[in-house]
Amino acid sequence: MRATVMYAAGDVRIENVPDARIIEPTDAVVTVTRACICGSDLWPYKAMERSEKGRVMGHEAIGVVESVGGDVRNLKRGDLVVMPFAFSDGTCAFCHEGLNTSCIHGGFFGNEEIAGAQSEAVRVPLADGTLYVVPVGRDDALMPSLLTLSDVMGTGHHAAVTAKVGPGKRVAVVGDGAVGLCGVIAARRLGAEQVIIMGRHPDRIALAREFGATDVVSERGDEAVERVRELTNGFGVHSVLECVGTEQAMLTAVSVARPGGAVGRVGVPHYEAIPLAQPTFYNNITIAGGPAPVRAYIDELLPDILEGRIEPGRVFDKVTGLDGVPDGYRAMNEREAIKVMVKP
Amino acid sequence: MRATVMYAAGDVRIENVPDARIIEPTDAVVTVTRACICGSDLWPYKAMERSEKGRVMGHEAIGVVESVGGDVRNLKRGDLVVMPFAFSDGTCAFCHEGLNTSCIHGGFFGNEEIAGAQSEAVRVPLADGTLYVVPVGRDDALMPSLLTLSDVMGTGHHAAVTAKVGPGKRVAVVGDGAVGLCGVIAARRLGAEQVIIMGRHPDRIALAREFGATDVVSERGDEAVERVRELTNGFGVHSVLECVGTEQAMLTAVSVARPGGAVGRVGVPHYEAIPLAQPTFYNNITIAGGPAPVRAYIDELLPDILEGRIEPGRVFDKVTGLDGVPDGYRAMNEREAIKVMVKP
Repeated sequence: MRATVMYAAGDVRIENVPDARIIEPTDAVVTVTRACICGSDLWPYKAMERSEKGRVMGHEAIGVVESVGGDVRNLKRGDLVVMPFAFSDGTCAFCHEGLNTSCIHGGFFGNEEIAGAQSEAVRVPLADGTLYVVPVGRDDALMPSLLTLSDVMGTGHHAAVTAKVGPGKRVAVVGDGAVGLCGVIAARRLGAEQVIIMGRHPDRIALAREFGATDVVSERGDEAVERVRELTNGFGVHSVLECVGTEQAMLTAVSVARPGGAVGRVGVPHYEAIPLAQPTFYNNITIAGGPAPVRAYIDELLPDILEGRIEPGRVFDKVTGLDGVPDGYRAMNEREAIKVMVKP
Repeated sequence: MRATVMYAAGDVRIENVPDARIIEPTDAVVTVTRACICGSDLWPYKAMERSEKGRVMGHEAIGVVESVGGDVRNLKRGDLVVMPFAFSDGTCAFCHEGLNTSCIHGGFFGNEEIAGAQSEAVRVPLADGTLYVVPVGRDDALMPSLLTLSDVMGTGHHAAVTAKVGPGKRVAVVGDGAVGLCGVIAARRLGAEQVIIMGRHPDRIALAREFGATDVVSERGDEAVERVRELTNGFGVHSVLECVGTEQAMLTAVSVARPGGAVGRVGVPHYEAIPLAQPTFYNNITIAGGPAPVRAYIDELLPDILEGRIEPGRVFDKVTGLDGVPDGYRAMNEREAIKVMVKP
């Protein structure tokens, strides 16, 4: 089968690889009908050291169950499924607490050990716990939005939940990528009164406004912090959604939180320590977040997509076949595209 | 009047200073009947740079209202009051949210601007919002426990609340000082099933056990982390109460939290950045806490003291008059005393 293999920073190739197949009796093989390139894929695209074996990339997908192992109980050939970016057994203590990304037997797609979904097909470990059957046809118009349940919509929601967004709250979203934009949707959905998007790409800002952002801050660093304070009576926001992962983004995030506020981190951290340990202490600021347990959030988010109340699929502004994936990486890396959908 | 003045690290003197008096119409003057030396007073005791003016120390007290300013409505001469370590107006947005330590008009006792309570009397700004009238006589046997409402019991409670302690949870308390010991009380009071005290002073550990600690970890560093994991099926604890404030303590705290767990910081941080930004992210660990809004917690904690369900006053193991305060600092600094009560 054909798949996307990354060998080093900037070196993304479409190659023939061995077909995905059942290895464990709890596996399923899924024919990928939609996949994506993720903002987090750009980290290895910028910095991956050369690997002989390479990584079959991709951790977000919708597809059709092709075959299941002997121990799979809840899935059958032909089911249309969302594949969350982490696999999980659905039965361990952490899965029961809704933290599937810490599943004792779980793991992540798209690394050297577990092949990813920017491929014609993908092997899904712990299929019963991992895959979520969606009640729509294969070419349903809702497909882009359903696809975001595999990562970015669930991740934006996690940022909002861990930042304690609720009715009437003031919120800042650091980052205008697909996750930040889904964070805007999530914040409004949870009742935020004010949602300040912090970013500077006109197309993304325009979409953020359509998703319900009330204010835009395009300044950087201290000026950005100052601007958020101006927009919030001098105090800062109750909730900050940190959707970037750089130290500068985190510095901005903790600086715009008001006393008693919370920062939900979902940008993969490329910093060793969380800055401003003293001001965050004196202001009783909570720092939370991490990899989103998107599997656990589908129950809550799916009805809003099916009934058209939220449209996170609008973050996709480029669609390609597998052959176009290397150019898709380039386009996202150069901020030419917000998010690329792949139809293998 | 006589008061405790710190001029530099190790230089604590009992001196005559001008009498506490009403300056603002919202002030009260309180005759101090009980004060304390706090673990946080040991930071300047170790490191304060020499000051000409000095600091009148002390931020915890019980006393009797001596006089009130013209705008004070809820207090009268003769009231017995608890003085929380921070003053607050009780009416601003943050006070309404229960975060009195971030009161817009508030501040802290015992610094170069606002004199402290290791004195015969203390001026209390924003007296209506700050002081809490307690319904007992001046020499009531409950006095030591009531005195802890001014700081350490409320602070231990804040650590437990921000670390999300609840029924059935596993808890670790980093630090066996008075705050850590009150943290043990708070964790049990909130329903924790397992409370691991991390410390190594036999007298303090013994008291922690009496307060309900179920396990003791006296190792340091990586060995301590390993030991906590052994005691918790390998996963770590749901809630960590960080009651020290050093970088090493914080490192231990975030390392013993289980995935999805929370660290409540109440030790005044002597570190610039919160360590392990990446492991805490991947494990979805929440880091919260700060100066405890003890004023807001009195309503909840007072009945348990009055009815004898908790006895935080047992942390006091040394009592002195004002003359003995310098030696009290020495004794606490040398870990000869857990906490010193001052009867001016």
